[in-house]
Amino acid sequence: MYNELKKRAYDANMELYHRGLVIYTWGNVSQADRMVSAFAIKPSGVEYEKLTWQDIVVLSLEDGKKLDGDLNPSSDTPTHLGLYRFFSDVGGITHTHSPFATAFSQAGLPIDCFGTTHADQFRGRIPVTRLLTQAEIDAGYEANTATVIAEAFTEMDPIHTPGCLVKGHGPFTWGMDAMASVYSAAVLEEVAKMAYLTRTLNPQCEELAQRVQDKHFFRKHGKNAYYGQKTK
Amino acid sequence: MYNELKKRAYDANMELYHRGLVIYTWGNVSQADRMVSAFAIKPSGVEYEKLTWQDIVVLSLEDGKKLDGDLNPSSDTPTHLGLYRFFSDVGGITHTHSPFATAFSQAGLPIDCFGTTHADQFRGRIPVTRLLTQAEIDAGYEANTATVIAEAFTEMDPIHTPGCLVKGHGPFTWGMDAMASVYSAAVLEEVAKMAYLTRTLNPQCEELAQRVQDKHFFRKHGKNAYYGQKTK
Amino acid sequence: MYNELKKRAYDANMELYHRGLVIYTWGNVSQADRMVSAFAIKPSGVEYEKLTWQDIVVLSLEDGKKLDGDLNPSSDTPTHLGLYRFFSDVGGITHTHSPFATAFSQAGLPIDCFGTTHADQFRGRIPVTRLLTQAEIDAGYEANTATVIAEAFTEMDPIHTPGCLVKGHGPFTWGMDAMASVYSAAVLEEVAKMAYLTRTLNPQCEELAQRVQDKHFFRKHGKNAYYGQKTK
Amino acid sequence: MYNELKKRAYDANMELYHRGLVIYTWGNVSQADRMVSAFAIKPSGVEYEKLTWQDIVVLSLEDGKKLDGDLNPSSDTPTHLGLYRFFSDVGGITHTHSPFATAFSQAGLPIDCFGTTHADQFRGRIPVTRLLTQAEIDAGYEANTATVIAEAFTEMDPIHTPGCLVKGHGPFTWGMDAMASVYSAAVLEEVAKMAYLTRTLNPQCEELAQRVQDKHFFRKHGKNAYYGQKTK
Repeated sequence: MYNELKKRAYDANMELYHRGLVIYTWGNVSQADRMVSAFAIKPSGVEYEKLTWQDIVVLSLEDGKKLDGDLNPSSDTPTHLGLYRFFSDVGGITHTHSPFATAFSQAGLPIDCFGTTHADQFRGRIPVTRLLTQAEIDAGYEANTATVIAEAFTEMDPIHTPGCLVKGHGPFTWGMDAMASVYSAAVLEEVAKMAYLTRTLNPQCEELAQRVQDKHFFRKHGKNAYYGQKTK
Repeated sequence: MYNELKKRAYDANMELYHRGLVIYTWGNVSQADRMVSAFAIKPSGVEYEKLTWQDIVVLSLEDGKKLDGDLNPSSDTPTHLGLYRFFSDVGGITHTHSPFATAFSQAGLPIDCFGTTHADQFRGRIPVTRLLTQAEIDAGYEANTATVIAEAFTEMDPIHTPGCLVKGHGPFTWGMDAMASVYSAAVLEEVAKMAYLTRTLNPQCEELAQRVQDKHFFRKHGKNAYYGQKTK
Repeated sequence: MYNELKKRAYDANMELYHRGLVIYTWGNVSQADRMVSAFAIKPSGVEYEKLTWQDIVVLSLEDGKKLDGDLNPSSDTPTHLGLYRFFSDVGGITHTHSPFATAFSQAGLPIDCFGTTHADQFRGRIPVTRLLTQAEIDAGYEANTATVIAEAFTEMDPIHTPGCLVKGHGPFTWGMDAMASVYSAAVLEEVAKMAYLTRTLNPQCEELAQRVQDKHFFRKHGKNAYYGQKTK
Repeated sequence: MYNELKKRAYDANMELYHRGLVIYTWGNVSQADRMVSAFAIKPSGVEYEKLTWQDIVVLSLEDGKKLDGDLNPSSDTPTHLGLYRFFSDVGGITHTHSPFATAFSQAGLPIDCFGTTHADQFRGRIPVTRLLTQAEIDAGYEANTATVIAEAFTEMDPIHTPGCLVKGHGPFTWGMDAMASVYSAAVLEEVAKMAYLTRTLNPQCEELAQRVQDKHFFRKHGKNAYYGQKTK
């Protein structure tokens, strides 16, 4: 029953691996199917080289219980579940430890919008969460990681800014499906690299003027977009 | 009628991809044929892995109207058109978001000539444009991007310095044909990387003495050049 | 008699090479067999491209004498021998000159724990040794390299922090077997890269709060670990 | 008559390319045969992808005149010729624009010996030349590039330190034959990368203590060396 869902999650996990964004068993991608209230995610601790689509684990979007699969799901599964609940339009989520995005997470710095590469994909700066308290860690570290991400989006639209840095940890990104969330993860890493180079070249660099940010974001997104081909 | 032109544009776009200067659908290369007053360019939003030469779009150099092709041309097409009109000896144009060149664009810094790798290909510093005003964005963002590039070359020869950084955006390069503009894009990225490393090693580093810049530029360019093989 | 041991050492050396952590003849991996009091190590100065499992050299864990093999063992063999003696639970050791870890070694800086990528694999900061004195160099440079590594672990558990930077030289890592020590070497290089980027982005960056370090380390290690799959 | 010499120069040029140290037509390697007073070098401006061993050009070590080959030799040929004359034990020379070594050249900084990776291959710091004067450029830019390199070695042994940075240009390296000079070029780039990372991590970093530099250099070089295998 969940084979199609598992295959889509598998394909997106392998795309993440082939883009060079993860090594060994690191990172994970999930794909949701809100019609059947389920999501499929990478199993915990399995190397990408050995992963098969049958290894993918399916869980309930309602209570997080396992619906299909023999293996344990990613240890970050409660973060995915929480994000699907907080962000109701999201259909896929990716987590990586890609080095430039992780460096900003570790430094506790958001990624400012310095250029159009950023503005094409992410509206405004990419936020960084606060650290969890001991009580939050004890009550459920992974679930509360979703909570602090949602908190960082209190005044932001997660569809317009499809990614967040978890302080001291690394990036989570999302999209309309799993493959789109991998695209966001790849762009985030590229944007983080450019922001790193920009800041180390010019520590006083200011963010890109809002008028250019708006121009680029809205030539690719929304009803007046004119980038790309018309979908039939 | 335009098949040869489309194939040349296609080959140069694929060269850009295989050199690792672009990912996904980013960047674009065009090839002009001034005899028939046309230029061929990558379609908008198409991934390089899926691009075929038949997808290339041909437009008029006179009014930018589409002459051949089923797809929408690159959203940066008016910038290419503008540059072909401002720079009458240019036969090919490349745009990328390569990371080191983009970092200088974002930092708002020109690339100073610190060494002979730069001087071999670019005469003097590689300039950075000013930002567009709101009025210029509204009047035609992409066309006015060509205008600010041309403005940066008021006192410079675009044939001797075949590239420019658009502030907050990224590099445009050019050459006698599309393939030459890709070469300029690859060299610009390499030179930007070296300039980044040089500046972060030695923030007080001065530009290379003019006598050595001249020596290197003119041993490769102009009537007294002695680099390379005699063309038959 | 030692063929199995030699093959395991060979496989781990080749893994090190294919992970891109060594070039030419640099670096070395050894595998111990404490039941027969022996360890197998890469021969000195042999390129990975030409290495065969039959080239691996086997030595005694008791006195370091050669037990099997035609070639000279790695010049770093006495360091491996010393570490096997100081760290009685270690079954494999890796040495590399990977660039980010080596840069911290050269700069004389430990690698602070800035994030969960580090905390997942290494408990606390990764220490850097002191330099050897002239007397220690004269008495046995490679054997005393093991001594200063052990000294750095006087108040640390080498199983929880499976790696060390030798000042002015580079990293040594270890694990339950040779392949695990290569994994530690790969993670150390990645963690060193992230720490480099973090420090250059934010020179005042503080280490990750202890509560998050503990959470990540113990969700992967020890009796309450819940990362990965149950081993049958 | 020169086929063997041309093949050795060809192989070393292709090794340089496959190591990723050069792109397009950049860089060049030569191989000398002092018995017949000749050296073979890459032709000028030919891409490595298209190079064949028959394209290699042979010149006299006495007067630099062409002895064999249809193409023009590298424009840097007089630098090679000069170095063969100044450094009588050198049998092969490599020139690259590899980015980290070039950045030090551009910054006008020698590469200090910060660690054993450096000390294993290069004795002491790798010097940087002075700039040529206008008179020297006019009298023969490439030949006088050899002169300023030799000047930098007035009190150094070029066999113990087989490389030099030409200010504002890039590295030249050498060795007993062409392949050894490519090895020196690859190690120099790796050492330059580590030195860059070390300096940007710790701007006050001091050079490695002389006793450790000596230990590493002489365990690989000279009559008491014990690294590697005995040659039969």
